[in-house]
Amino acid sequence: MNKHCGQASIQFADAPVIISAANVAGPKEGAGLQRAFIDCILKDNLQGFDSWEKCESYMMKEAVKQAAAKIKLDVESIDVILAGDLLNQLMGTHFAMRSLSRPFLGLYGACSTMAESMLLGAVMIDGGFASHVGCAASSHHDAAERQYRFPTELGSQRPPSAQWTVTGAGSVILSDKGAGPCITRATIGRVIDYGIKDPNTLGAAMAPAAAETILCHLADFQLQPTDYDMIFTGDLGMIGRQLLIELCKNKGVDLSENYQDCGCLIYTEQQDAHAGASGCASSALVFCGNLYRHLLLKTYKKILLVGTGSLHSPTSYQQKESIPCIAHAVAVEVGE
Amino acid sequence: MNKHCGQASIQFADAPVIISAANVAGPKEGAGLQRAFIDCILKDNLQGFDSWEKCESYMMKEAVKQAAAKIKLDVESIDVILAGDLLNQLMGTHFAMRSLSRPFLGLYGACSTMAESMLLGAVMIDGGFASHVGCAASSHHDAAERQYRFPTELGSQRPPSAQWTVTGAGSVILSDKGAGPCITRATIGRVIDYGIKDPNTLGAAMAPAAAETILCHLADFQLQPTDYDMIFTGDLGMIGRQLLIELCKNKGVDLSENYQDCGCLIYTEQQDAHAGASGCASSALVFCGNLYRHLLLKTYKKILLVGTGSLHSPTSYQQKESIPCIAHAVAVEVGE
Repeated sequence: MNKHCGQASIQFADAPVIISAANVAGPKEGAGLQRAFIDCILKDNLQGFDSWEKCESYMMKEAVKQAAAKIKLDVESIDVILAGDLLNQLMGTHFAMRSLSRPFLGLYGACSTMAESMLLGAVMIDGGFASHVGCAASSHHDAAERQYRFPTELGSQRPPSAQWTVTGAGSVILSDKGAGPCITRATIGRVIDYGIKDPNTLGAAMAPAAAETILCHLADFQLQPTDYDMIFTGDLGMIGRQLLIELCKNKGVDLSENYQDCGCLIYTEQQDAHAGASGCASSALVFCGNLYRHLLLKTYKKILLVGTGSLHSPTSYQQKESIPCIAHAVAVEVGE
Repeated sequence: MNKHCGQASIQFADAPVIISAANVAGPKEGAGLQRAFIDCILKDNLQGFDSWEKCESYMMKEAVKQAAAKIKLDVESIDVILAGDLLNQLMGTHFAMRSLSRPFLGLYGACSTMAESMLLGAVMIDGGFASHVGCAASSHHDAAERQYRFPTELGSQRPPSAQWTVTGAGSVILSDKGAGPCITRATIGRVIDYGIKDPNTLGAAMAPAAAETILCHLADFQLQPTDYDMIFTGDLGMIGRQLLIELCKNKGVDLSENYQDCGCLIYTEQQDAHAGASGCASSALVFCGNLYRHLLLKTYKKILLVGTGSLHSPTSYQQKESIPCIAHAVAVEVGE
């Protein structure tokens, strides 16, 4: 384990294979830029359930089941599932796991959860502790809105710097054998806090954490940004994305050529999402659909996925605390 | 990885060593049964901070720092910390990690978090991904009370089946070398829900999850309960403990000889804690003090720690859901 920059980087000896991926999304996301890459689009934000939280739980369960079904893998063959979401006490995840009934380890990395689950999943596979690991993350706009901000029905006006929490879920299945893109390297993030206190400017709060993890990853493995076909952050949105480019430029690293943020790839301009998408499902939706497809087609051969998470809570905000953030990176590659 | 009973058991090839452990507790806990085994007892439930949540954060930070200081290890030498707590968005943990500034992976296993962190920490050490891993968990009675139940100041009357959330934190440091008790085996739990809906009867809700994990662990490794000097659950309390003994007895496994619950070992009868202790810090406090000391002294040579977690949230309760639970087991042993 490398420890440059005070962060922890891992090179996987027998790069775990991502043998399947699936995603589920809400109707707004299904009408957006990722439409062609979504496995299941909900008819509405409740999908017949009596709460948004239960609908989120359904999405996560479906994402895992569909990832397994695509490769005709029995869910019972998954050794362990690593998953999490944004809700208090992971309500979305826990009720999904009750129904899937597999060995389960709960994670909380806020919107960095998809990358965190893939990182720890790869650790379990590469270390020989499991043959099939499910990794999943979810978020639901309406459930997140009422938990973090105001009653959703109030329809409060949002400032231009606000991002729109993605309604969706994504899941991958990692294996110690089989064909598919592989997780080759990872960098575990530290909690970084530049003192931003406005929970409507999360992209700006998270950008320094993303910068630190990316710079550390590149230094640890002696890579240039262009050694990756593309670098994707999770949900910095338009504002955070620009800040990340500037923060890296100040350190002599140019991301302008081949960097994009998943939060800028979900909603069209007409969809009124302001500064872009956010939520665990931002990177989960884009990675488990679009990016996985491009890796299979080899239009991308080497990407770096950097999950970004804002670790504040409504309580910490009320107690006038600034916003601690984190970013975890996983490198995914396909052979020639 | 064994997969009997549908759960996942791990035998560690090079059993990771617990090279240090430390704990911090509130004044009530410091006046209780574990008094002699607590490294730092707070003067009150705020310890000079302006919120209970910030005090919880302080306890976790101190537990990690003291675990490192005891063995003269620089905190900077810890490769990664795995930790979590009960608060929404892990407020206790995240602000502790901001200040410790080490690579960090957030976990949510409710009161099973200490065992979950030790399990995943052992995976990282045994797999060769880290040399020193910090594992930690915390809870704070007053912070948990207002989050899960009623305003703490209200002093609502509690039913006899209720448990008292422990104010405290515990941390261990795992290493790939050195002397100390070793983590030899682990069993990852599944989410189990027997339909209990009363959040004032969490011990009863969690007992079936504990039973399943213990029975699976014993079956997977072909062990009898008496192959361990003692089996400890996390926070079933008096009611859950009795139910666990009965559930196992019904399956032909006798725990009555050498089983105790950490939640029954924290408060005296005079301390009015009703059915016992609960919270992440229940097992964290007892393991990182009392049990670790007994392992060092070899009065216990082989114990099974079974972290038990109730995964409900106030939202899931309000939506009339029953209480999903989980239990993770780690076996800790010392040589002759």
